[in-house]
Amino acid sequence: LATASKQGPEDARRANRSLLLRALHHGGPTSRADLAKLTGLTPASVSSVVRDLLDQELVEELGTRVDGGVGKPATLVGIRPDSRYVVCLDLSEPEQFVAGLVDLTGKVVVRRSYARDERTGRRAETLVKRICHDLVADADRPLLGIGVASPGIVDDQGTVTTAAHLGWTDLDLGVRLSARASVPVHVVNDANAAALAELVFGAGEAQNLILVRVDEGVGAGLVLDGALFTGNRSAAGEIGHVVIEEHGEPCACGKRGCLETVVSEPLLGKRLGADGADEADVLGHAGSRLGVALSTVLGALDICDVVLSGPASVTSEAFRNATRDEIAARTMPNIADRLVVRPSTFGFDDVLIGAAALVLDRELGIH
Amino acid sequence: LATASKQGPEDARRANRSLLLRALHHGGPTSRADLAKLTGLTPASVSSVVRDLLDQELVEELGTRVDGGVGKPATLVGIRPDSRYVVCLDLSEPEQFVAGLVDLTGKVVVRRSYARDERTGRRAETLVKRICHDLVADADRPLLGIGVASPGIVDDQGTVTTAAHLGWTDLDLGVRLSARASVPVHVVNDANAAALAELVFGAGEAQNLILVRVDEGVGAGLVLDGALFTGNRSAAGEIGHVVIEEHGEPCACGKRGCLETVVSEPLLGKRLGADGADEADVLGHAGSRLGVALSTVLGALDICDVVLSGPASVTSEAFRNATRDEIAARTMPNIADRLVVRPSTFGFDDVLIGAAALVLDRELGIH
Repeated sequence: LATASKQGPEDARRANRSLLLRALHHGGPTSRADLAKLTGLTPASVSSVVRDLLDQELVEELGTRVDGGVGKPATLVGIRPDSRYVVCLDLSEPEQFVAGLVDLTGKVVVRRSYARDERTGRRAETLVKRICHDLVADADRPLLGIGVASPGIVDDQGTVTTAAHLGWTDLDLGVRLSARASVPVHVVNDANAAALAELVFGAGEAQNLILVRVDEGVGAGLVLDGALFTGNRSAAGEIGHVVIEEHGEPCACGKRGCLETVVSEPLLGKRLGADGADEADVLGHAGSRLGVALSTVLGALDICDVVLSGPASVTSEAFRNATRDEIAARTMPNIADRLVVRPSTFGFDDVLIGAAALVLDRELGIH
Repeated sequence: LATASKQGPEDARRANRSLLLRALHHGGPTSRADLAKLTGLTPASVSSVVRDLLDQELVEELGTRVDGGVGKPATLVGIRPDSRYVVCLDLSEPEQFVAGLVDLTGKVVVRRSYARDERTGRRAETLVKRICHDLVADADRPLLGIGVASPGIVDDQGTVTTAAHLGWTDLDLGVRLSARASVPVHVVNDANAAALAELVFGAGEAQNLILVRVDEGVGAGLVLDGALFTGNRSAAGEIGHVVIEEHGEPCACGKRGCLETVVSEPLLGKRLGADGADEADVLGHAGSRLGVALSTVLGALDICDVVLSGPASVTSEAFRNATRDEIAARTMPNIADRLVVRPSTFGFDDVLIGAAALVLDRELGIH
C-alpha cells in the first residue's frame, strides 16, 4: 500500500505529538475524546501520545468533567506549565543582557540582568556563555532548551550574520553554545522573537502580523500564515534602512532619509529631551513616518495587525495613533478599516518571552 | 501505534501522488529508484503510485537508462504533457476575454479571444459560461479542470469580491461555473495567476518573488516560501492605491498620489502619445515610482526577484532599469546587490498560463 508518507514513523509520532500539544496549548485542558475530534487523530493515537506525554510529565490529568452525555465523566488533560523551563536570553539592549527562566505558558519565573560594559566580539560571546551557565544552574526543573534573541541578522542555523553594536559577524552562536549545552539551543533575531511571542503566547489569533521593534534602530518580525517569515537570507523585517524621505537626513549607512534617521530610541530620546520639545509633535512625526514605511508593506500583504515593541515613547498612544492614521490615509479600506496598531502584549519582556516561544516552536511544534 | 497522522489514507495517497508529480514536473523523466530517493517514499510506495498514474495515463514509461551500476537498466517515468488539458480564461483585458487549452507543461495548445463589447455584470458572466462551453467542446483530451483568472479581488472559494470594470461584486463565479461543469473549476486574481505561472512553469527556482502586473491599474502577486500568499482577505498584492506621492494627482479612489495615478497602461499610453513626449523620461519616471512602492515591500520581506507583467512599455528595459535603480538606491545590500527586475517569462500569455498553473497546483499538487 502506498500510504507511507514522506515522513517515517518517528516523524509521524512527533507530528502527532505537536498536534496534541498545540491543541492543548491553545485550547487549555481537554478530554482525550475532544482531542481526537480537534486533531483528527484516532482515539487510539491520542491515548498513546497522551500516555507518552504523561510519562514525560509534560501533561497532567486534571480531574473529570461531565459531558452532558450518558458516558462516564471525561478526564481532562492539560499541559503542566512548570514541567519544563526555557533558558532565555535577550541580547538586544545596549547596556545589558537580560536573561530568564520562562515556563511553558510564557511566564518569566526568574529574571536576571548582566551589565554588558560595552563588551563586544569574543568578550560579549563569553558573557553569553556565562549567562547560559548561570541560568542552567538556576533551573530547578528540566529544561526544554535555550533560546537566544540577538540583534542583527540571524540565519536558520543560528549564525549571527551581523550584529553591529556587538561586533559580531558570521558568528555561529548556536553551534558554539550547543557545544557546551546538554539541551537544544536556538538563536533568533530580536524582532522575530517578539513576533513569535505574539504568535505563541499572545491572546489574539493573529495568523498575519508585523511586529516593529524600535531600539538602537528599527527592525520588524513578520508572521505570515501562522509562521515566522524570514525571507531569502533571513533578513526579512530589516526595514531600518529603507528610504522614506527622499531628501532626508544622512544615515550611517550612506543613504539619506532611511527610516532609522527618523525613528530610533536614541533619536526619540534626544528630540524629546530638547529645549521646548513638544512631545505630541515629536511622537506624532516619528509615528507617522513609520506609518509611511509600513503602508506599502501592509497593502502589499493585506495584513492589518501592527504590533509596536520598544520604549514607552514608541508604544505610547500618541505614537501609535500617528502610525495608524498615516497608514489608514495611505491604504485601501481592506487595510484602513481593520487596522490595529497596538503595543506588544508582553511589554519589555517581549523579546525574552519570544526566545521561549522559539524553543516551544522548534522543540514541541507549538505555534 | 500512534503513527496515524491527521490525514487519512486517501489524503496520504494524494500527498504521495503530489510528491511524485512534483518531482517529475521539476526534474523531468526519472527512474522509480531515483523517485524514491528524491521523495523519501519507499520503493513500494513509488511503484504503487506510479502504477496508478500509468493507469490514469498521466505519466508514461520512456525507455531505459543504464545507471553505471551493475543492475538492469532503469525505466524512466515522465509526465505525459498532453494527457490532460486545462481550460484557461484570462478576463483581465478590457477589450476581450482570452481563453485557451493549456497542456501540463504550460504550452498553449488552442487560443481564442472573445470581444467583450463592454459587457458587464450578468452579461459578462454569460459570456464567460459560453467560453467555458466552447473550450470544453474544443478539447480532444481529458480535462484536468477549468482555471479562470479574473481582475479584482478573488477569495479562496472563487468568489470575485470586486472587479470594477466588469461590474462584479461578490460574484460566486467558481460555484456558478462548477454547477455547469463536469470538471473542477478554480478562480484566481489575474496578478496572482501570473505569479503562479512563474512558480509552476518558470525556469527559475524562485521560492520568493513579487510579480507586478500593469493593465488598467496595478496589482501584484506574491509567492512566499514557494506558495502564493494571499493575506487576510485575499487582497494581498493590491498595491495600486497605496500612496507613493504625498502631494500627487487626485485618484479615483479619493486619495492623492496613489501608485495608479503614476503607473497604469492607459496613463502610460497617453503620456507616451503626447506631443514631444520623451519615451525614456516617461518610462523612467513611472518605473522609478513603482520602485518607490516596491522598495519597502522588498526590504521588509527580504526578497529580490521582481517580475513585471503588462504592455511592452512596462516590460521594456527602460522601465525595468528605472524600477531596479530606484529600489537599489532605497534598500540595503541584501536586496540591492541581488535584485533582479525581469519581464514575465510568458509575456502576454502569463495570466492565461497562470490559470493553468492554478489548476495544476490545486488538482495535482504541482507547484
